[in-house]
Amino acid sequence: MDTAAPSLDWLISVDDHIIEPPNVWQDRLPAKLREAGPRFLTIDGVEHWVYDGKTIPTSGLSAAAGRRKEEFSPLPIQFSEMRPGCYDPVARLADMDQAGILASLCFPSFPRFCGQLFLESKDKELALKCVEAYNDWLIEEWCGAAPGRYIPMIITPLWDPRLAAKEIERCAAKGARAVAFSENPAPLGLPTIFDPSRHWDPLFEAAADAELVICMHVGSSSQLPAISPETPAIVNLAWGAVRTAGTMLEWLFSGYFKRMPGLKIALSEGNIGWIPYFLERAEQVLENQRHWAARGIALDGYEASVANNFTPDDLADVNLRQLFRDHVYGCFIDDIHGLNNLDVIGVDNVMIETDYPHTDSTWPNCISLAHKRLAHLPADVQYKVLRGNAERLYRFQPVEPVR
Amino acid sequence: MDTAAPSLDWLISVDDHIIEPPNVWQDRLPAKLREAGPRFLTIDGVEHWVYDGKTIPTSGLSAAAGRRKEEFSPLPIQFSEMRPGCYDPVARLADMDQAGILASLCFPSFPRFCGQLFLESKDKELALKCVEAYNDWLIEEWCGAAPGRYIPMIITPLWDPRLAAKEIERCAAKGARAVAFSENPAPLGLPTIFDPSRHWDPLFEAAADAELVICMHVGSSSQLPAISPETPAIVNLAWGAVRTAGTMLEWLFSGYFKRMPGLKIALSEGNIGWIPYFLERAEQVLENQRHWAARGIALDGYEASVANNFTPDDLADVNLRQLFRDHVYGCFIDDIHGLNNLDVIGVDNVMIETDYPHTDSTWPNCISLAHKRLAHLPADVQYKVLRGNAERLYRFQPVEPVR
Repeated sequence: MDTAAPSLDWLISVDDHIIEPPNVWQDRLPAKLREAGPRFLTIDGVEHWVYDGKTIPTSGLSAAAGRRKEEFSPLPIQFSEMRPGCYDPVARLADMDQAGILASLCFPSFPRFCGQLFLESKDKELALKCVEAYNDWLIEEWCGAAPGRYIPMIITPLWDPRLAAKEIERCAAKGARAVAFSENPAPLGLPTIFDPSRHWDPLFEAAADAELVICMHVGSSSQLPAISPETPAIVNLAWGAVRTAGTMLEWLFSGYFKRMPGLKIALSEGNIGWIPYFLERAEQVLENQRHWAARGIALDGYEASVANNFTPDDLADVNLRQLFRDHVYGCFIDDIHGLNNLDVIGVDNVMIETDYPHTDSTWPNCISLAHKRLAHLPADVQYKVLRGNAERLYRFQPVEPVR
Repeated sequence: MDTAAPSLDWLISVDDHIIEPPNVWQDRLPAKLREAGPRFLTIDGVEHWVYDGKTIPTSGLSAAAGRRKEEFSPLPIQFSEMRPGCYDPVARLADMDQAGILASLCFPSFPRFCGQLFLESKDKELALKCVEAYNDWLIEEWCGAAPGRYIPMIITPLWDPRLAAKEIERCAAKGARAVAFSENPAPLGLPTIFDPSRHWDPLFEAAADAELVICMHVGSSSQLPAISPETPAIVNLAWGAVRTAGTMLEWLFSGYFKRMPGLKIALSEGNIGWIPYFLERAEQVLENQRHWAARGIALDGYEASVANNFTPDDLADVNLRQLFRDHVYGCFIDDIHGLNNLDVIGVDNVMIETDYPHTDSTWPNCISLAHKRLAHLPADVQYKVLRGNAERLYRFQPVEPVR
C-alpha cells in the first residue's frame, strides 16, 4: 500500500452470509452421529435440512444475490436456483472481485446467526459436535479456500459458557478472529448479560483473552420485534434497528468493558445512523436520572418491570462515549445519515458490509456505491471505513487478488 | 413582531405537564357522581387520588421542578412539597416568564398522558363524565387563567371512537387545539391503527375536521419497554425513543394521511435525533422489500408474527418523506444531534419542549439553553423551532406578557 495515497479500490465486508453446502456435517461428524446430524434431503420436491426433528428449507430471502427486487421471496429456494457464490467459496470470490470486496466475514444460515439451531437441539452432545463441525468446516474449507479473503468467525455452544470458552480457545488456535453471539440472549431462553451470577463471564473472558471480536447480528435473538400484533411486516422491518440500539445500550451500561478491557463488539447489520441519537440520549439519561434510577424503584403506572442492579456509585464515573470509542463497532450496508455524521460516531468505529447474498445487499454495486456514499470524506477516513478499521479490529491481513 | 428581525426572546413549549389540583372532578361532576369520582384524600399521611378502586399517589418524578437531580425520586410527593407552578396556572406563569416560555401545551398527570386512567375505569358512564370534566377544567380554568399562554389539549373517551369524536367536536367549539392519543393502542387492549375494521376512523376524522393536532406522548401506551427482563431501568429509559420511532413508522405506513389529508400528528417528548435514520431506513425497506413483504408470508426462524394488510400496489406510490413533511411533527427537549441535522428532518417539522415539571425538564434554563443549541441556525429557522411552527400547527396566537 502506498501510504501517501491509500488504495480505495477494495472494501472489506464484515457481514455476508454463507448458504452451507449439503456436506458440512455429514463429512465431519463421527460416523455414529451422522444419521442424527444435519442431513440434506429433497422432500416432496423441495430441498430441506433435516435435523433434530425439524425439516428446514432455505428461504429465498437468504439466497437472493443476482435477483431483481420483484423476484425476492421468502419461499423455499433450491441450490439449482442460487448463484454458486451463495454456497461455494471459490465461486464467491468471483462475485467479490466483481464488486470490489477484498475480504468478507460470513455468518451461518442453517445454524442461524449465532448458532441458535444447535442451542435448541435436544441432544446437546450431538449439538456440540455440530458446532465444532461447522467451525472446522468454516475455517478449513470456506476460509481455507482463499487465504486472505475470508475472516473466520465461529459459533459456540450457547447453552454452556464454559464449553463455549473451550471452543473459542480451540478455534482461536486455528485462526478464528471473531465469534458470533446473540444481540439479546433473553428471547433464546438464556440468561442476559446482566445476570447477577455473571453467567457469561467464561465466554466473554475467552473472547477477550483470544482477541476475538464478539459479533452480534441483527436477528440473532431469533426475534423480529413487532410494534403491535397488527403492524405490517414492512413497518417492523423498518423498525429493526431498535434491537441493535438495545444491544449497544446494554453493553455500554453492563460493566463488561470495565471488567474485561480487551472486549470488542461489532453490531453486525445494525446500521449506524441511529447511534448519535442513542449515545447522546444515554448520556443525558445517565446525567439526569442516575440518582433515582439506580435505586431500583418501580415507576407508577408502568406495566414493565424496572429491574436494577446498579448503585449510584456504579454509574458515577461511567463515560459512555469513551466506552463506545474503545469497544464498540457500528456496521452498515448503506446509511447516508450515518456517514454524514461519521465524526460523531467515530471514524475508527465504523465498518462497511455488503450483506451478500441477502435482500439488503448492495451487490454487485458494492464498491461503486461505497465510493459515492464516502465521497465527502478524506481519503484516509474512506480507507478506514472501507477496510482499515476491519483490518485492525479483526487483526486480518487481506491478500489482494491479481487482476 | 418585527419581520426583519424575529424576536427570539421566547419559546413555545409543546410538552409540559399539569399536576391536577384536588378540586378538578369534585367541582364539576354531577352531585350524584362525586362520591364515585376522583377524590383527593390523605391516607396514612400520604396524599392520594382515590378512584375506581385505586389509590394513586403522585410520583416525585412528575413534580420535580426546582429540585436538584440528586433529589429526584419516584416516591410519593405531597402538594406542600411541590413548586406551586406544578398545579397552579397563575404560579406557572411566573416560572414560564422566568424561563422564556411564552406558551405551553400541557399533558394530564393523574388521568395519564391520553386519559388511560378513564379507559381502565369499570364505570364508563362515570368515566365519560370525568373526561368531560377534565377537558372543561383544562380549557376554562387552566388555559382560561391566562389567555394566549396555554394551548388547550384535550383527552377523549378512548374506549369509544364515536364518543371521542363527539368530545372532540364539543371541545373544538370551546377552543381546543389538540387532542391526546396513544403512541400505541395495542398495550392498552385497544385495536391498533391497522385494525381492518377501521376502528379509529371516527376519532381521527373528527380531529382532522376540527383541525386538532393528534399528540402522542412517549409513555402513552402505559409501557416502558424493556430490552430484556433483567435490563436496568436506566438502560430502558435511554432506549425509550424506540416507542416513538415505532409510532412514526406506523403512521407513515398506515394510509391515514392519504385518506385524511388534514391529519397532523405530534410525537410528544419523542425527541428528534433518531428521525433521519428511521426515515431513511423506511425508504430503503420500502424500496428493497416491498414486493415480498406486501405478500404477507412469515419469515423462517422468527417467532414474531408478520401480519400484513398491504398489497404491493398499496405501497408502490408511497412517498414517506413527503408524508412526514406534510403530517408529522417531531418534538424535542434537548437534542443536539437532531438540531445538527434539522435540514434532514425539516425546519418546519420540529418544535421545542420544556417538560416542566418532569425530571428531563430544562427549566429554569429553557430559553438560554435553546439559544445555545440553536445558535448555528439562521434566525428565521430558530424562530420556527422556538415558536413559529407551534403557532402555525396549533393555530395559536400567543400573547406576550408585559415585562
